[in-house]
Formats: sequence, structure tokens, C-alpha cells
Amino acid sequence: MNREGLLGGNYVYWMNVPADRRDIVISCRVRLARNIAGIPFPHLLDPVKGRAIMEQVRAAREGNPGLVLGSMQLLTFDKLDTLARQRLSEKHLCSPEHCASGDGHRGIMLNGDGSLAVMINEEDHLRIQCLLPGLQLKECHALAQQLDDELEQTLDYAFSETTGYLTACPTNVGTGLRASVMLHLPAAQMTGAIKQLLQNVNQLGLAVRGLYGEGSEPAGNFYQISNQITLGQSEEDIYNYLQTIAEQIVEQENLLRERLRADVPYQLEDKIGRAYGILSNARLIGSDEALRMLSMVRLGIDLGIIKDISIFSLNQLMVAIRPAHLQKIGGLPMETVQRDVLRAEVIKQMLSGEEAD
Amino acid sequence: MNREGLLGGNYVYWMNVPADRRDIVISCRVRLARNIAGIPFPHLLDPVKGRAIMEQVRAAREGNPGLVLGSMQLLTFDKLDTLARQRLSEKHLCSPEHCASGDGHRGIMLNGDGSLAVMINEEDHLRIQCLLPGLQLKECHALAQQLDDELEQTLDYAFSETTGYLTACPTNVGTGLRASVMLHLPAAQMTGAIKQLLQNVNQLGLAVRGLYGEGSEPAGNFYQISNQITLGQSEEDIYNYLQTIAEQIVEQENLLRERLRADVPYQLEDKIGRAYGILSNARLIGSDEALRMLSMVRLGIDLGIIKDISIFSLNQLMVAIRPAHLQKIGGLPMETVQRDVLRAEVIKQMLSGEEAD
Repeated sequence: MNREGLLGGNYVYWMNVPADRRDIVISCRVRLARNIAGIPFPHLLDPVKGRAIMEQVRAAREGNPGLVLGSMQLLTFDKLDTLARQRLSEKHLCSPEHCASGDGHRGIMLNGDGSLAVMINEEDHLRIQCLLPGLQLKECHALAQQLDDELEQTLDYAFSETTGYLTACPTNVGTGLRASVMLHLPAAQMTGAIKQLLQNVNQLGLAVRGLYGEGSEPAGNFYQISNQITLGQSEEDIYNYLQTIAEQIVEQENLLRERLRADVPYQLEDKIGRAYGILSNARLIGSDEALRMLSMVRLGIDLGIIKDISIFSLNQLMVAIRPAHLQKIGGLPMETVQRDVLRAEVIKQMLSGEEAD
Repeated sequence: MNREGLLGGNYVYWMNVPADRRDIVISCRVRLARNIAGIPFPHLLDPVKGRAIMEQVRAAREGNPGLVLGSMQLLTFDKLDTLARQRLSEKHLCSPEHCASGDGHRGIMLNGDGSLAVMINEEDHLRIQCLLPGLQLKECHALAQQLDDELEQTLDYAFSETTGYLTACPTNVGTGLRASVMLHLPAAQMTGAIKQLLQNVNQLGLAVRGLYGEGSEPAGNFYQISNQITLGQSEEDIYNYLQTIAEQIVEQENLLRERLRADVPYQLEDKIGRAYGILSNARLIGSDEALRMLSMVRLGIDLGIIKDISIFSLNQLMVAIRPAHLQKIGGLPMETVQRDVLRAEVIKQMLSGEEAD
């Protein structure tokens, strides 16, 4: 999959789950906030100094052709139209806020499959992220760390011996590390256990968000959980803590799924069957309803009730039904009804085994 | 199809629509109320006199082996269990009130395919009915009339030269004729036109009822419309009047269907597609919801949106999902959840082309 695929297609590495994997953790991410010494943070940055950052990143990339860094592609946002940028966000490669701008001093650097990305002049000069399928925070951190090390060979990071990496927002000072996991918790939702579960997660010092991170509401039983503290702990401590809590949530969700199967098997299969029936036969469908139905179908696959659909296809669908991905197929301008019609078509095609991409 | 089929299976003649027919009128019925002279009406009848009526009918049948009457089978309700009687009602061969009793002096006489039936000691001594698919009131009347004539060769009907046939309820005095049509009016429902339409029907002197006649609420967009006046008009006047009004309703429903197709084609196809999806994939479904969904699928077939399902199958399904038909398959006792599960299975089987009968 090349850069064109990441910009246009429905594929990105975190979707790529082996056929036999059934994960309650859909994907995980480690993100490192980094800034260049002696240059104002992006919110105080003028376009000229912003472009200087961009040029430093470009030089670092071009000076290291043999490394991971050297194989990445640098895209400035003045070269990408609004929809192309929005698709990066819909694939979780870029924050919605960052991709909203078409400025030439903002952009993103990507490896071939989207497992590694660096947002440039987002809230910090650099936000290095690694995004993998399932619960692999250690691997995420190792890959992000490797890219960070390669960049540091050329770039002069703002760093203090006492506090660590300096960042635009004080909540990121220190390690600059944020780790997150995307969880799928339909049984917690259906049994009503979700409320207490999320309260517990908050009390453990973690933040709960929706599919699209900060500011997005949870939808379709998908929850992003991430650390809030970056200072005073080692990087390993941070992601190990999240890993432990994620494993506990997974265990609880699995128990609740077993309980539903034992206590209300018909009702459970009914919800799953109907969701599949609606997705396979609707003529128009909104994105919220589609996500809720995809959540039920995913549960059906996890439980072995639905057999002929892969988690990989579902992961692709979750992105393919977003507005900018739909408009890539349907063209502009699209009204809500047209988008709902196209969304229903894309879902029908992918569920019946024809790739919409 | 033999008598066992009428008692047990899902088939009865009114369901038997040719593959190319698309009728808004599902079925039509003519019913003649008749009583034997000199014997009290059934609500004043003791079992002994009741049995005397039964014996008169039996004698009339046995004395005329060459006629339609002679080929019919006489069933007394002490020989049929509760579920078998209830299935006759679910097939529209017998009123729910009549089949509630297991008395030996009550019963029904049926021809082989259920197009002709005579309820014995229901509200009147005899209620002769003919039930045909589509809008064929003239044919209904001719067949009921023929059976009536055959019975009258032997039986001494209570008849007055001034008022006509005498009946237990004054509303039936005169011709003793009630004609009805079962209409499927989803577009009138979806556009909100149904309210005015039913008001008009009432003002024209006709009664509006549900799928199971007197006392049943309309469900799934199915409405039974019948004459209320039986006195002072000829039999032809009565059914011709109903025929004319039914034709006008059909015209209006067709116009509303065309308008929906023109104005909200996607929403219409969506409702139809989702109904099909739910019926094909639900694990449990109640009878009200099933009827609503079957109504949408029927509309889909009428409009050519759904192609692989026959109206004949749908007619069978409307009866096969009723409680006593389900219990014929599932046995007794069945709780609501079990019945809802079995109903979903029966629907799934019949929609996928396997007959559940």
C-alpha cells in the first residue's frame, strides 16, 4: 500500500488483523510530543518559522535515506485538498484539528503503511506516533522510540534535564508520551456495566474519549482510553500501566459477554442478526447508526455467531463510511441523503465480499 | 390439500395467488347468515337442540353426495383440540369466538381447499362463507349462493316474505349477507392518508376492522372493510357497492405508492430493505412486528423491489406466524420467548425458500 493508498484508499496498518484474531482492543497508539529548541511552539509560530521547522524535518529525512525516517514521505498541507486531509484524520493518522488547516507550514510525514506518522506543527513541532492493531503498546513504543532516535540524530530537541521534553501544553511535559488503546465494549454497554467501568477508569487517572480522540463522544461502543500524566514516570511505567488496565477491562468485557451468552442467548443473537440484516439491506444509513450496527456485527464475529466477515473488513468499513472517504467515491457536493445512500451501498458491497476500495 | 392440511398446514385457498398477481386486495369474502325455522337462535340454544341442527346439516350433506355440499367434511368441535380450532381461526376459516368453544353441538363444515366453509351454531345456526384471493366478490357470492341453494333443498330456513332471512342479530336480517375485503394499505399509512381514508369509508356506511374481523385492531397495514347494512338492498347491490369502494381505495393506494416512489424513493426502498433484513436475520420476533415487516416486504414485492419471494409465500407466512400454527411445530407449552424464537425461524426458512409446512 503506497502513499496514494493512505490518502485515498480504505487501508491503514492498524486495520490489518490476522484472520484468527478476535481483539477487544482494536488498536493501540504511542505518541511522543517533541519540539525544536529555540523556536516558539506552534500556536505562537509565524508561517516563516513554521516553514523552518518543516525544512529541518525534511533535511533530517533526506539526510538519513537508510533509516526508517529516510523511507517516510513528507506531505505539506498546502499540497493536499480538504478531503484528502480529512481522510488522514478518518484513518486516525492525524488529529482532526491538525488536518483542518491547509497551511504550507503544517503537514505530516508517513511511512508506507501508516503505522508510523509524524504530525508537524500540530500542538507541538513534532508529534511522533506509532499505531498498531491489537494491544501491543510495548511494540508501539519501541517503533515510535526508534523514529524519535533517528530524528534526534539531526534535530535539536527542547529538553530539560530536570523536567524532560518541553511541550506546548504542560500536560505533555516530561516524557511527552501519550499511550492510548481503542476498546470495543458492547457487552459492558448492553449490561449497563459501562458507566461504573468508565468511572473506575477515570479514577485510575486515565482519560476516556470517543473514536476520534479529544473532544469526540464515544459512539458505537468504541472507547479510547489514554494516560493523562506524562511527568514523573518512566515511559515504560506509563504504557505498562495502561496495558495492565486495558487487560483488566478486556477480562471484564469477556466475562460480560459470557454472561450475556448464558443468560440471554436469543436476545444477544437477535441484536447481532438484526444489525447484520440492517447493514446488508438498508438503502440509506447515517454514520452513527452504522457504527452501532458495525459494533454488533463485530461482536457477532468475536463470538463466532457471524462467520463470513473478517475483522479486517469491519475495520476498513469503520473508516470507509466516514464523510471524506465517501466523498472520495461520490464526489462533491454530497447532501446528507446522498451520503447516507452511498454509505449503505459501500457497506452492502463490503459485507458481500466486494471491496469498495 | 386435504382436510388435515386445513387443520394442520399453512395452506388455504385464499392464499393461492398466481405468481404474476400483485393485489392490494388480499382476499374477499361473502358470508350468508341462515337459521333453521322453529329452533331458537344459538345463544338461546341448549346442547340437545344444538345437536339437532348439527344432525340436520349432516343429513343434508350425506343426502347430496353429488353436490358441492356432499363433498364437504363436517367437523364437530368436541373432536378438535383447542389448537386445531384456533388454527382454523388463524386461517380465517372460522371466527375466533366460534372456535373458542369445544362443544359437540358446534362445528364447521369445510370443502377441500377452504374456499367454502359453514360455521354451525355460531351466532346463527349456519354461516355460509366463501373466501377467495383478490377482489372477486361476484364469484364469492356465486359460490356461497350455490352452497346456500344446495343446503336449502334439505333445510327449512327461517325466512319472512317481508323482511327476508331471519337472523340472531338484527343487523344481519334481510339478505343475511356480509361481504368483506382484506386490503393492504401501507402507502396510505406511510403518507398519513389512512386516517381520512378510513373516515370516508365509515361515512360511506362500511365497517373497518383488523385482520381478524370484529374486535380485532388493524395491524401491519391490513384492513378489513365490510358492509354494515343487509336489509333493503339486493345481494348484488351490497357486494357491488363494496366492490366499487374497494376499487377506489385500491386506486388511491396505488397513487400514493407512485407518489412515494417519486418523492422519497430511497426512504421507501430503505424501509422495505430493512424489513426484509430484519425478517431474514432476527433471532426472535413478536407477531406485531413480524406483521409490520411482512407488510413492507409485500409492498416491496408489489413494487418489484423484492423479486425472489412470492405473494403466496407471504400469505402463508401471515398465518404460519400465528400462535396456534407455531405451536403445531413447537409443541406445548410455549413461552413468549420460545414462540418469538420459533416465529423467527419459520420466517427465515420460508423467506429462504424452504417451506416450513
